[in-house]
Amino acid sequence: MTDDLNALRRRLAEFAAARRWQPYHTPKNLAAALSVEASELLEIFQWLTPEESSRVMADPDTAHRVEDEVADVLAYLLQFCEVLGVDPLAALAAKIDRNERRFPPV
Amino acid sequence: MTDDLNALRRRLAEFAAARRWQPYHTPKNLAAALSVEASELLEIFQWLTPEESSRVMADPDTAHRVEDEVADVLAYLLQFCEVLGVDPLAALAAKIDRNERRFPPV
Amino acid sequence: MTDDLNALRRRLAEFAAARRWQPYHTPKNLAAALSVEASELLEIFQWLTPEESSRVMADPDTAHRVEDEVADVLAYLLQFCEVLGVDPLAALAAKIDRNERRFPPV
Amino acid sequence: MTDDLNALRRRLAEFAAARRWQPYHTPKNLAAALSVEASELLEIFQWLTPEESSRVMADPDTAHRVEDEVADVLAYLLQFCEVLGVDPLAALAAKIDRNERRFPPV
Repeated sequence: MTDDLNALRRRLAEFAAARRWQPYHTPKNLAAALSVEASELLEIFQWLTPEESSRVMADPDTAHRVEDEVADVLAYLLQFCEVLGVDPLAALAAKIDRNERRFPPV
Repeated sequence: MTDDLNALRRRLAEFAAARRWQPYHTPKNLAAALSVEASELLEIFQWLTPEESSRVMADPDTAHRVEDEVADVLAYLLQFCEVLGVDPLAALAAKIDRNERRFPPV
Repeated sequence: MTDDLNALRRRLAEFAAARRWQPYHTPKNLAAALSVEASELLEIFQWLTPEESSRVMADPDTAHRVEDEVADVLAYLLQFCEVLGVDPLAALAAKIDRNERRFPPV
Repeated sequence: MTDDLNALRRRLAEFAAARRWQPYHTPKNLAAALSVEASELLEIFQWLTPEESSRVMADPDTAHRVEDEVADVLAYLLQFCEVLGVDPLAALAAKIDRNERRFPPV
């Protein structure tokens, strides 16, 4: 319940407000931070073979790092959406609708 | 209802399966695709001032582009989480808990 | 001669000046543009196997795309170095020196 | 002399060979590493105003960090070009030629 998407979005907004971080949270800065965090996730995989990349969760330290970077990517995505008034779930639902027409199943 | 996070996750998994795209969806490839899409979102903002970046949704074409890239980032994040069995909401809730201890409010 | 690194750096500076693009060329914007172009290079490879990635130059269209993105990455790197007064060759020589001490040969 | 571009390229190739890192240096992995390093450079700037971003070299620690990330970006760009046989200077010269026709001066 407390960890559904909207609740997390509100917690992130309150977290930033309580620390007076909003002046830093321009859409441009949040888009940069999102891309930096997505690269930190990629960094975990950059030298791995495809097969090794499928087994990263077997190592507890790497699993924790993966979860931590996933959290950072989602956090900045939600904060970006918050400041611009974008609904990420509606945006994704609309995109899947378009892609179902664009790429017919095999 | 159909556009909640888990429903979207299932739709994305079915979409990839129907097109036989799973062999491409290694964690490494999905992390690369996620970072590429996050950069495409950043590209919209790269030459804008902070003030201009706050007004991007006023232009319908740019607003659509922003929503489209947000959808792509979320799609690859969910697909990445799907193949590795990561719960992104639980990961973010745990991260906010840690950050609340790490960065006390002002 | 005309295509050595310093000559290219000067051509890029003159190119931007002639188009009055310097106000956009803050270090922050150029760092964002560099990272966006590096992602466009990665995009070419994101779904390829390691083996396929080694053969990209065999296809003339893909080869041209690779060269084009390499040019964009180098262009923004040189322009970034120009506005901050960084010497990229000296920076790399110093880094290799450090790495030779840090990672002894096998 | 020792720090011209081709000399650096050779030093990087010898460095990787002496450590038996070549199996990891597929074009795909090097493109990923390049994009990760470009993001690390962007990270330095992500919360800065345009004005602050112009003053980063005034702080010795930040200046060192900037030079270090520039070195990493250039290193992976040269190693990427090495494994695919791309001439980065020729690619950039050709691109500037095209852009001079595409974007007439003001």
